[in-house]
Amino acid sequence: MGDEGCGSPGKRATGAVFRDGGVTVDVCAQRAVNPRARESQLGQVTHGLKQDSQKPDKEVIDMCWGDPHSAGIKPLSFVRQVLAACLHPELLHSDRLSVDARQRAQRLLGACRGGSVGSYTPVYGLPHVQCSVAEFITRRDGGVACLPENIIISSDPLRLLLFLLAAGEGASRAGVLTPAPVCHTVAVALAEVGVVSVPYPLCEERGWALQANELRGVLQASRGRCDPRALYVANPGDPTGHVQSRDSIEEVIRLAAEERLFLLVNEADQDSVHGEGCEFVSYRKVLSEMGPGFSDTVELASLHSISRGFMGEGGLCSGYMELLNVDPAVAALFPSGLLAGHLPPVLGQLALDVMVKPPRPGDPSHPTYAEEVRSRRETLMGNVRRVQEVLDALPGVSCVPGLGGHYTFPRLHLPRAALEQAESAGVEADLLYCRKLLEQEGVCVRPGCEFGQSEGTHHIRLHVMVPPEVLEEALVRLKRFHLRFMREFS
Amino acid sequence: MGDEGCGSPGKRATGAVFRDGGVTVDVCAQRAVNPRARESQLGQVTHGLKQDSQKPDKEVIDMCWGDPHSAGIKPLSFVRQVLAACLHPELLHSDRLSVDARQRAQRLLGACRGGSVGSYTPVYGLPHVQCSVAEFITRRDGGVACLPENIIISSDPLRLLLFLLAAGEGASRAGVLTPAPVCHTVAVALAEVGVVSVPYPLCEERGWALQANELRGVLQASRGRCDPRALYVANPGDPTGHVQSRDSIEEVIRLAAEERLFLLVNEADQDSVHGEGCEFVSYRKVLSEMGPGFSDTVELASLHSISRGFMGEGGLCSGYMELLNVDPAVAALFPSGLLAGHLPPVLGQLALDVMVKPPRPGDPSHPTYAEEVRSRRETLMGNVRRVQEVLDALPGVSCVPGLGGHYTFPRLHLPRAALEQAESAGVEADLLYCRKLLEQEGVCVRPGCEFGQSEGTHHIRLHVMVPPEVLEEALVRLKRFHLRFMREFS
Repeated sequence: MGDEGCGSPGKRATGAVFRDGGVTVDVCAQRAVNPRARESQLGQVTHGLKQDSQKPDKEVIDMCWGDPHSAGIKPLSFVRQVLAACLHPELLHSDRLSVDARQRAQRLLGACRGGSVGSYTPVYGLPHVQCSVAEFITRRDGGVACLPENIIISSDPLRLLLFLLAAGEGASRAGVLTPAPVCHTVAVALAEVGVVSVPYPLCEERGWALQANELRGVLQASRGRCDPRALYVANPGDPTGHVQSRDSIEEVIRLAAEERLFLLVNEADQDSVHGEGCEFVSYRKVLSEMGPGFSDTVELASLHSISRGFMGEGGLCSGYMELLNVDPAVAALFPSGLLAGHLPPVLGQLALDVMVKPPRPGDPSHPTYAEEVRSRRETLMGNVRRVQEVLDALPGVSCVPGLGGHYTFPRLHLPRAALEQAESAGVEADLLYCRKLLEQEGVCVRPGCEFGQSEGTHHIRLHVMVPPEVLEEALVRLKRFHLRFMREFS
Repeated sequence: MGDEGCGSPGKRATGAVFRDGGVTVDVCAQRAVNPRARESQLGQVTHGLKQDSQKPDKEVIDMCWGDPHSAGIKPLSFVRQVLAACLHPELLHSDRLSVDARQRAQRLLGACRGGSVGSYTPVYGLPHVQCSVAEFITRRDGGVACLPENIIISSDPLRLLLFLLAAGEGASRAGVLTPAPVCHTVAVALAEVGVVSVPYPLCEERGWALQANELRGVLQASRGRCDPRALYVANPGDPTGHVQSRDSIEEVIRLAAEERLFLLVNEADQDSVHGEGCEFVSYRKVLSEMGPGFSDTVELASLHSISRGFMGEGGLCSGYMELLNVDPAVAALFPSGLLAGHLPPVLGQLALDVMVKPPRPGDPSHPTYAEEVRSRRETLMGNVRRVQEVLDALPGVSCVPGLGGHYTFPRLHLPRAALEQAESAGVEADLLYCRKLLEQEGVCVRPGCEFGQSEGTHHIRLHVMVPPEVLEEALVRLKRFHLRFMREFS
């Protein structure tokens, strides 16, 4: 944990060629917030903690990353059985794997060139998997047909799209409207690709609601400073955990239609909606139901991933996007090198196939699969409830109950003395809080300042998809720390 | 084969946002030459062939891609056993996997966060694997120590480096010297990243030798049109199959030192040297032996991959680079988002570990592993000999015998009438040849025009790492086609 690898710069001798290299992105900003990297500032503290013999009882609990497997959540066994047999086809005869896992592996191998997961695939992904994804979407949306040719399998569809959106200089530079707060990785991707981020605030008081009028104002104001082309939405939201209603989605689609904005919709947490009476509705379904004038014009990319939800297979690097109403010229714009550079490994593509086509009732693996999913859902819902309960009882903390996703994003109402100490140290007060929490109690959470929260507010983000006993220990430490912190600065 | 996926542009409805998108790279050029994609022009022909009921006996033989598994070469079983157990740890108790494969899997899982290949890793790769790679390099080079912190695990280290080299506009635009001919994917990567390619000719008459004086001339001439910063070398060469001698390597290093060029050395085919009396010597070893003035100043990146050699695991997307003498500031320049975007999936990283640390004599799996490698080496050497034999007997063909790698790159001396027909059709004569070969005989090879061959020369590249019986059938068809082609145009 907190391991940054050993590629430390200091050990290399001097040279010349790169000295005036032209990387224009904000390296520091990225270094702090990349999803697949360990976070460096907190990472160093973590490392220090582990080295510190004064604190032998403090095994660090990492609630910073959305990385359920590293926290101890087990992978879904059917997924792993299928992939193991694909890797080593001799296992197609092993009793240790269920019959349907072996049958599925056999079919998937038939879709790979040369029957091997070591061979290459088309740049859009394996056609077999494109078809499985299209069937899944059609089924999920009650029959609103999805065409396989609209599916692009990708390890990072957002970055792929941003590369294509990026264009222009100065006032004509492409802009993307992004919620505030937004997942830090979105901001990083925008910065790297050179697209202007135009934040529109979500309303915390109204459950992190997206407010179309507010958004419209931000959009108008951004013209002149960039060329706003797309609107990014995460539903369920990250880090906010809000889930959009059908009405809210319709409102966003109308706005996109009027303003000719491309809709970039991240729906990666669609299977993790847990709010009572709350359900996931896809943008594409609402779009389709709005009929001509919308359903045939609004450009939409819907993103999904195997890293999230109950799969949690971030290490397999796979996902997809569905494109709707996108100009035919765009497909020609996708450079195949760019596609290839974002193409998941074959095993990741096959894992995606299993995610969208899990065992069905009657299949030998279905009881186990259903039980595993049920138990993970129970863990998630129990954890969300438990975190809320503990946070609600803490002084100086308020928390909008999350409705979906794997994060909780409570607001900290910190004492003036804490704000002053942070200011004199030149850091945001919630970063100060997170550092002290990590140093003193070995609990690693992420400060709200990394997500673009409203000026003057402070938050922390906790990843709650961890085993319940880990959560309990983390909450004990968090509570102890928080009460001490508030006392110290009162 | 020839399957482009179903992401066809024509099926999408119209839209607006991307219309004036700013992708500046040459889309057509890439579309034709991407390594992980199916080649579109030939792909369409292939597809047509498969549909064509007139030619039911023509199963297409693909010798176009360096994709041994798709051609029917089997993966190394130890690699797959280890990875299968890592994926599905219940197999750690399965008798179907060898004891040492299970032990290795256990150790590798210990190096993954949460003991799962589904969790994230540091952006430089798993420290455990960095260390294994460093040990491998040190051992290979007779003790010239490699430090783990100089290893960056990456799915595409070349592109990563090019991103950092890319800078400037007009005459100050970064340039990279590249051999001609060069693997088409290198040209694509340069174009995409916006780096100027400065081709230096290899001498076919001297076995595709790199000629330092020639190179120096090209370098001088390039100044003014770009800022040449790096020299790309592939050893063994692709598509040429030449292997550099120690003297030749030393000459290149001297030149790099004098001209302050960064050395980008692709050594991915290092385990596939097959020329009699020929051996692979690494650039880093020669550099180290040249002593101070060189060993402590010349900037070098050495690239390796699990896609090549006897692994052939292209679908697992993994490789590494070792950086030597690179300015400490460079590591800071590596944006972690960029690193993360090029980070192999965890299973690919573990496959790399197995590649660099295979079973040793005495290990239970060693006999099988050694036999599998021996048999693949025999296949490669037998195929290389056999192709040479057939080509040497064909009129209008000359072929420099390859010494390493998995390709043969014969020259075609085509009749004037063929050149004229190609010219009037507006295509290169070797592309015309390849198309007809595919249409008439269902053999897919790659035309030399994609590799930057010398003006007025024509070649084809054949991937020869295919099962011997497949090769035989391909050679029968190639011979029949070639004789007919030469007759037709004489």
